[in-house]
Amino acid sequence: MDAKKKIDLIKRNLQEIVGEKELDKKLKSGKEFSLYWGTMPTGAVSFAYFFPMLKISDFLKAGLKVKILLADLHAALDGVSWDLLEKRYKYYERAIYLILQTLGTDIKKLEFVKGSELQLNKDYLNDLLKLSTFTTVAKAKHSASEAVKTARDNPKLAGLIYPLMQALDEEYLKVDAQFAGLDQRKILVYAREFLPKIKYEKRIELMTPMIKGLVGKQMSSSVESSKIDLLDSEKIVKRKINKADCVAGNFENGIMELLKYLIMVLKEDNKEKFVVERDEKHGGNLEYSCYKEIEKDFVLKKLHPLDLKNAVAKEINFLLRNFRKDKKIKELYRAAYS
Amino acid sequence: MDAKKKIDLIKRNLQEIVGEKELDKKLKSGKEFSLYWGTMPTGAVSFAYFFPMLKISDFLKAGLKVKILLADLHAALDGVSWDLLEKRYKYYERAIYLILQTLGTDIKKLEFVKGSELQLNKDYLNDLLKLSTFTTVAKAKHSASEAVKTARDNPKLAGLIYPLMQALDEEYLKVDAQFAGLDQRKILVYAREFLPKIKYEKRIELMTPMIKGLVGKQMSSSVESSKIDLLDSEKIVKRKINKADCVAGNFENGIMELLKYLIMVLKEDNKEKFVVERDEKHGGNLEYSCYKEIEKDFVLKKLHPLDLKNAVAKEINFLLRNFRKDKKIKELYRAAYS
Repeated sequence: MDAKKKIDLIKRNLQEIVGEKELDKKLKSGKEFSLYWGTMPTGAVSFAYFFPMLKISDFLKAGLKVKILLADLHAALDGVSWDLLEKRYKYYERAIYLILQTLGTDIKKLEFVKGSELQLNKDYLNDLLKLSTFTTVAKAKHSASEAVKTARDNPKLAGLIYPLMQALDEEYLKVDAQFAGLDQRKILVYAREFLPKIKYEKRIELMTPMIKGLVGKQMSSSVESSKIDLLDSEKIVKRKINKADCVAGNFENGIMELLKYLIMVLKEDNKEKFVVERDEKHGGNLEYSCYKEIEKDFVLKKLHPLDLKNAVAKEINFLLRNFRKDKKIKELYRAAYS
Repeated sequence: MDAKKKIDLIKRNLQEIVGEKELDKKLKSGKEFSLYWGTMPTGAVSFAYFFPMLKISDFLKAGLKVKILLADLHAALDGVSWDLLEKRYKYYERAIYLILQTLGTDIKKLEFVKGSELQLNKDYLNDLLKLSTFTTVAKAKHSASEAVKTARDNPKLAGLIYPLMQALDEEYLKVDAQFAGLDQRKILVYAREFLPKIKYEKRIELMTPMIKGLVGKQMSSSVESSKIDLLDSEKIVKRKINKADCVAGNFENGIMELLKYLIMVLKEDNKEKFVVERDEKHGGNLEYSCYKEIEKDFVLKKLHPLDLKNAVAKEINFLLRNFRKDKKIKELYRAAYS
């Protein structure tokens, strides 16, 4: 892959890059470039995890070194019971592995790191305390406000420690960049500003857009119908997609975002077409090779929401096939959430 | 020493005991009883350190095991520059050693512990994070409010972590009790309430009264004349005592507290008398064997403030004799504060 193509692939579908010039410079230098993506093992893993995993595939394809941090301690800081932590961790590890397997990702240059193994040591604590002497309570609150539940309402001290640890993880993982959803923005900006205060290098921050929920403005762990879970049955997937917001002619909805950021990216990469099945009497099947074509037809009302939904449900169910065959993920799920 | 005498000596001049029944029970059981006193190496050590050191002598005489925690990390959390920490630590260690030497304390059952050596480890960090998930920001703020500078005004996150670490120290030092000044009360009460939340035993909390400053209501690190420093010269001691608040007939002042909680305790323990030198024309020398006699004469104006001050300055200068002879303490001081 040539340098230009590599950089395009890395930046594909990103919403924002803090430190883009540094990124370009580092990528052009030809030196190894590494980044990390972190997630905390909290609630059941949703289908939305396919989005960052697809980006991680992009990074790996472009030759980057990628680390996935399964931040168990962060989950505890965000309210997961300490007793459940290990079980949630194991379930997340398997779920993410299966997504990557489904995407056909080459994981040779991918490393899984467990938060507690990275963080529970002398130097990390010393640096955490150091950071805390530079960070006002107001700053910590602000940084945590969007991403951390325990920093809101009657906030726990844990929620304020959370962003400091996320900043330190960039240093302790020895990466050049962090990759996260846009909801992490305040924490990433905090990391970039505060790591240099304790004599560490600031990192590059890459962010994906936030994907709309199937219903409502965004996916919500408390609104079951807003998202698909990895272990949802075929029937449930169909039902949820069927009930999703998707008004004819208006492309601003979660279904279209699924197509834009996931399904059509995969189709294009695999040089496959997205097929919308229709009766001959309604004009017969439609075939699309890129997202823009779908959007155009949808806006012109040449593509009916119901036909589109059926086709999307089929694609999702195809992507979830590995989860339905895998006994282990079901066992791990039961242990983690019953 | 019989049990009753032992308990009296332990409780002598304490202001408050939280868990007094537990204390009595443990002391009567005859099992080894241990406690810790902690201090952070911040500003220059004041003469007021003789008070807790005298209590520590009491505890040791009563057969208790005592640990002195030199909490270097806490000093950093309270605003001491990370670069100065080690120098401050060394100065404090020497200063405290010299006070104990002056008091003739038998230090066989005394152990010095350095905060960073106790605290910078995996389990401690894990427990700190655990505590932080149970502690609201408001609770941490409240606990730190009196004792921690960095928890006031534009507070640093460090100031809120401070009380959690002080609570954990009780567990990690494996002691039965903590001993501190009354200004630590909110932290001690926090420790007692929150250690059980992470499955550790609550400890007994012993508190000494707060001693008045020489001028003003209390000693203040920013008001030089409110306190005597261990390295003050004879002349400076005389001058500070001379300028101290001490109105004839009113015993509520720092000079009288010095007599009550330190000088006369030592005199009684050593079966010595406190001598106030006076010219024959003013009635000649006065001799006292206990504090109450002094207070009585002072209230009745039989003892003039100036005569009393001269005698007190003499006693203080006597107690500081080791500091004037010790080259090392001066070197350590220069390194720590220049």
